[in-house]
Amino acid sequence: MNKNSSALHEKDGVSQPETTSRSSAEKIKLNRVKQNSVNEFVSKILEGNITFLSKAITLVESTNSKHQEKANQILEKCLPHANKSIRIGITGIPGVGKSTFIEAYGKYLTSKGNKVAVLAVDPSSSVNKGSILGDKTRMEQLVTDKNAFIRPSPSGTSLGGVAQKTRESIILCEAAGYDTIIIETVGVGQSETVVHSMVDFFLLLKLAGAGDELQGIKRGIIEMADAIVINKADGENERNTKIAKVEFNRALHLYPLKESKWQPKVLTASALHNKGIDKINQMILQYISLTKENKYFTQKRNEQNKYWLLSTIDQQLKANFYNNPQVKNALQNEINNLENGITTPFNAAKKLLNL
Amino acid sequence: MNKNSSALHEKDGVSQPETTSRSSAEKIKLNRVKQNSVNEFVSKILEGNITFLSKAITLVESTNSKHQEKANQILEKCLPHANKSIRIGITGIPGVGKSTFIEAYGKYLTSKGNKVAVLAVDPSSSVNKGSILGDKTRMEQLVTDKNAFIRPSPSGTSLGGVAQKTRESIILCEAAGYDTIIIETVGVGQSETVVHSMVDFFLLLKLAGAGDELQGIKRGIIEMADAIVINKADGENERNTKIAKVEFNRALHLYPLKESKWQPKVLTASALHNKGIDKINQMILQYISLTKENKYFTQKRNEQNKYWLLSTIDQQLKANFYNNPQVKNALQNEINNLENGITTPFNAAKKLLNL
Repeated sequence: MNKNSSALHEKDGVSQPETTSRSSAEKIKLNRVKQNSVNEFVSKILEGNITFLSKAITLVESTNSKHQEKANQILEKCLPHANKSIRIGITGIPGVGKSTFIEAYGKYLTSKGNKVAVLAVDPSSSVNKGSILGDKTRMEQLVTDKNAFIRPSPSGTSLGGVAQKTRESIILCEAAGYDTIIIETVGVGQSETVVHSMVDFFLLLKLAGAGDELQGIKRGIIEMADAIVINKADGENERNTKIAKVEFNRALHLYPLKESKWQPKVLTASALHNKGIDKINQMILQYISLTKENKYFTQKRNEQNKYWLLSTIDQQLKANFYNNPQVKNALQNEINNLENGITTPFNAAKKLLNL
Repeated sequence: MNKNSSALHEKDGVSQPETTSRSSAEKIKLNRVKQNSVNEFVSKILEGNITFLSKAITLVESTNSKHQEKANQILEKCLPHANKSIRIGITGIPGVGKSTFIEAYGKYLTSKGNKVAVLAVDPSSSVNKGSILGDKTRMEQLVTDKNAFIRPSPSGTSLGGVAQKTRESIILCEAAGYDTIIIETVGVGQSETVVHSMVDFFLLLKLAGAGDELQGIKRGIIEMADAIVINKADGENERNTKIAKVEFNRALHLYPLKESKWQPKVLTASALHNKGIDKINQMILQYISLTKENKYFTQKRNEQNKYWLLSTIDQQLKANFYNNPQVKNALQNEINNLENGITTPFNAAKKLLNL
């Protein structure tokens, strides 16, 4: 599409007709952006243009197949410019201070000249329960920082779908020059596992004295952590923090040494008072340097890509099968036969697969 | 095949030629059993004939497609006579006394007029590391009990394959009149989860003072347990047993009330001295009566059947896809493209699925 073919030219000295208000014009301009060519998108993203980055992510998140096709073309052209960031996953229960921590850490990074993108994977947003990062009043300082880009969780019907969109958004953010990508998630369902499968470093935020160590062990979260940061380590909480540190260190020692050869650490922070952020950043840099040296960094990214390839195939195979109208009809019939004890699961499966 | 078409008739008064020794004749007869008709198999199994039951399980376990076809026909005809047993899963680490416990419990059941079948799901046997129940010296008393049927774990290349065979064997055992089916497994890989998905009651055997409570929580085993039985509660161990009982009760309270409305119990036993077996049996009967009353018993079996239907379909869809020669060739290529950063997991998946 020609950039100058827009009908929205304004002639000097001719006043705007009232029906084309300023906000309507904005809307039309915004719509027009969606129709920019793939090459325009790519060159603007590579320049670090936030409007185009946002619009490209909107295309990625769209369920419209034309948008998806365009998104895929943009992604392929951005790929050679991606992969140059550090991807950090941050999780913790509500109330642990995730936003405050991400704001403090994000500001710290931008003050050092870094560019930070914050994305979210939030399965609860897919059922309209409200989304993390969706609340504009959160991260007030980071939102206005020109070196920070914050994007709420995409909505979607499945955690897998939400995660796919987030993974593709990471590529776009990297192409736009963001060197640190923070993926936030809340401990709902399998969301931590999904985030763990798309980041280099996985950080678990905890509170002292919350008494949920066993929950973390139970759900396999502590096993995934490269670091546990005990937040709100200030005031009266400081003594409890010391006890919690010992406990979490013990919990971490339940697990054998990781393939990364990294021994997970327990640190403390008071994000509210900007305490401990420097040490946490040093630790993350140590991890990156260790794993880049022993090649684990690249190996893990390759494994993550392979994992996402195989799980996308898996999802699609199932979707194709179960969306087949013949299968839809026969499936309930076979389930009834199972309940009535006239077939076995294996015979029923065979019948359905032969359709 | 006609039953009388065998060439192995013996004429009265004519002595056997030497080459047809007694043992060769036995072998040929055994072979002949495999060739019995489906109806013969079914009627013999319904009579409780152990030889035919064993042979039918051998057909189920065979990888020969003709055997499998026959096995499926036998299974379908046995189905209306199945589903009448109590299926109990028993797991525990090596050394906890699983065999001794199963022998004591099995003998207890047969002494009350029950018929007991003991099957095993052992993923380690699939890689030739030796199989639980494979050792003939174990369960010496139960082996010779005419109301007990013991079958070692089938060999197989995947846990899913081993489990499918075990599930089909359960149906055959039930048709043969066994009213209690015990499925034994050892804590390797996902074997407990697999056994949990095929039984009514899941029993976890533990030792006092083993200090592996956290491992059980970590691996999700305690969450699945309907009862924890602390075995070897005898002699000097009795005091430790009391402490362990308190600890396991606390661990069980980490979890919300189960859908079955059953509050999991912690009991103690000394299988070696036949202590505590009666109480354990009473507890299991309580569970069965509660869940039959609140309909959970049937609901769970239906869900298990549905789970096995869907997971069989899932396995087959993947097998069909990845065994396609075109996919085989293209897959490695796409993985290389991923590693070289010239495609995304989602584009690569799309390409492969379009083949």
